[in-house]
Amino acid sequence: MRINQGTPKTDGFYMPCELAEHRCIYILWPERPDNWRNGAKPAQKVFKNLIEVMSKYEPVVVGVNQDQYAHVLGMNLPNVSVVEISNNDSWIRDTGATFLIDGKGGLRAVDWTFNGYGGLYNGIYFPWDYDDLIAAKMCNIEYADRYRTEGFVMEGGSIASDGEGTVIVTEETCLDPGRNPDMTKEQIEEKLKEYLGAEKVLWIPRGIYGDEDTNGHVDNVVQFVAPGKLLLSWEDNEDDPQYERSKEALEYLQSETDAKGRKFEIVKLHVPAPMYITKEESEGVDSVDGTLPRNEGDRMAGSYINFGIVNGAILCPQFDNEYDAEAIKVLQECYPDRVIEPIAGAREILLGGGNIHCITQQVPKP
Amino acid sequence: MRINQGTPKTDGFYMPCELAEHRCIYILWPERPDNWRNGAKPAQKVFKNLIEVMSKYEPVVVGVNQDQYAHVLGMNLPNVSVVEISNNDSWIRDTGATFLIDGKGGLRAVDWTFNGYGGLYNGIYFPWDYDDLIAAKMCNIEYADRYRTEGFVMEGGSIASDGEGTVIVTEETCLDPGRNPDMTKEQIEEKLKEYLGAEKVLWIPRGIYGDEDTNGHVDNVVQFVAPGKLLLSWEDNEDDPQYERSKEALEYLQSETDAKGRKFEIVKLHVPAPMYITKEESEGVDSVDGTLPRNEGDRMAGSYINFGIVNGAILCPQFDNEYDAEAIKVLQECYPDRVIEPIAGAREILLGGGNIHCITQQVPKP
Repeated sequence: MRINQGTPKTDGFYMPCELAEHRCIYILWPERPDNWRNGAKPAQKVFKNLIEVMSKYEPVVVGVNQDQYAHVLGMNLPNVSVVEISNNDSWIRDTGATFLIDGKGGLRAVDWTFNGYGGLYNGIYFPWDYDDLIAAKMCNIEYADRYRTEGFVMEGGSIASDGEGTVIVTEETCLDPGRNPDMTKEQIEEKLKEYLGAEKVLWIPRGIYGDEDTNGHVDNVVQFVAPGKLLLSWEDNEDDPQYERSKEALEYLQSETDAKGRKFEIVKLHVPAPMYITKEESEGVDSVDGTLPRNEGDRMAGSYINFGIVNGAILCPQFDNEYDAEAIKVLQECYPDRVIEPIAGAREILLGGGNIHCITQQVPKP
Repeated sequence: MRINQGTPKTDGFYMPCELAEHRCIYILWPERPDNWRNGAKPAQKVFKNLIEVMSKYEPVVVGVNQDQYAHVLGMNLPNVSVVEISNNDSWIRDTGATFLIDGKGGLRAVDWTFNGYGGLYNGIYFPWDYDDLIAAKMCNIEYADRYRTEGFVMEGGSIASDGEGTVIVTEETCLDPGRNPDMTKEQIEEKLKEYLGAEKVLWIPRGIYGDEDTNGHVDNVVQFVAPGKLLLSWEDNEDDPQYERSKEALEYLQSETDAKGRKFEIVKLHVPAPMYITKEESEGVDSVDGTLPRNEGDRMAGSYINFGIVNGAILCPQFDNEYDAEAIKVLQECYPDRVIEPIAGAREILLGGGNIHCITQQVPKP
């Protein structure tokens, strides 16, 4: 059911921290050949492995277009449900429902309006009509009533929540003229507080360097270790364009407090060494007018911060990069009670424009 | 998950009586214009009303093709989930999962092979590939492991189960050469026992007169009032071709006992007076080569036995027929603890080839 009166905040619902226990986790099967190279076959292999790893920790729901349904069903993976969810692409972090709890057993969700990362202004594909229905479909499967943000555009990857009243976003995404051009920063902040049941919104200026797909989503920049403690995408090399972005974010966060008045403890997580799209990779993508191209030599927006979270484990992207091992080490120190699962082949996900966090969406245990 | 070893019987699972408590009930949104007249719009009105009535008694899950999803979602009906299930037509009784329980909290299902009511031999539409995936999709949404009857063709409307070891079918359907032409009656009986966890299969010779769509499904002929007690489609007029079919079924059932050795108590439920497809109705159906036509003057296979069952209520088809009131009266006497809900406009469902039982499929409470 769509809820037509009130907001999550007025109704006592809020977005819990992703680290809180999950009921299950959703993922969408990748397909579109104008984004995923070689008919999405290399990406599908990586997604399948990720599904298998995640399903060791919690139930995984895989949303699939009809044309690939029988194929994915036929894998017959334990602890995995295969449901039909028509989609334009696989970024369920952004297109999926943002689930909310009330601490009393209730489960609801925000169904953000989605416009393909900027609509006709600077969106990266067209159309996005299937994607804009994904959240409703998840809610209907999960028996969760939903708040539809009619007209207010947002993506789940734009949001980090500590579950204790603090939400972190980036100005680069949330003030992007392709999203809500007629709203002020204050109005957007107010909407975020209402729909996420939050008290305070923090605004990191920019996302990571080269993140043209999302215009700088926060889920490449920071993730909570716990309330009051953050992992931050970092770059040591002062000559790298990422450096000033990381430094800017660090200084901003150090100058701020969270909703409970705490100063942040910040752990730096070094970004991978620069990675560039190869000729072969570029040529594997079907060129289509209106879809963001993947050009040879483009630097990809790699970030270990875009890891996944399941009950009892962290899913760390591995790029065959010199910083891979360090990422695992830092994550293990931050999450000592969780298994750190290295996910090989994360370059394939990155070639599509995001990473593990972008392609997963949790349903919290109510 | 598909279960690849064992059968429901070996694993202690069986099909409960439909009257046992439901978790929810599924229905598929009708669409195909070569079966439902006037672009399925009159049928959709009747389906919507039925959904609203059923949702007063238990959660209703509506499966919808992508192209009508936003429309059905927008109805925003309470206690109704709208999920995406691509389908070739709306007969979820036949294409859907047959759910099984073990009496210990377990829920599984049979995923029968479906071939469009007779495949290339005498099936009524082509293709049926979406329909053959419906059961798997239901199981994945309900987190129920499934037994796929690879190669063994059956439809849910071919089966009546008392939940105490007795299953009733018709020879006309189950021995139809379009289903399992290479199997003997004994082999088919054995499969039914294995997959339904049953002890005894009873074979009524024929279905009701004119049921060309299904070749005589049993769910137009009998329904359980309780174990040992049956409602039977009846015709008083000895000159009507239905008479000898009803009499034959009555005599057969009177000569038999159920799995527990009980003689049947049989209550007659008179079929509606003959109803014929009008010129206007026939012309409203898009004529398509390969789909069973709906010709002017054809007698329709009307039966009140094809009623629906939800927790606490019986959904009785109403055809604006002289026997409508009697049907309600008989059903109320048989089910004194249930509300009898008259469903107006059931002629629209019948024009498509079935009735309320054919378009619904329950999930029992495990």
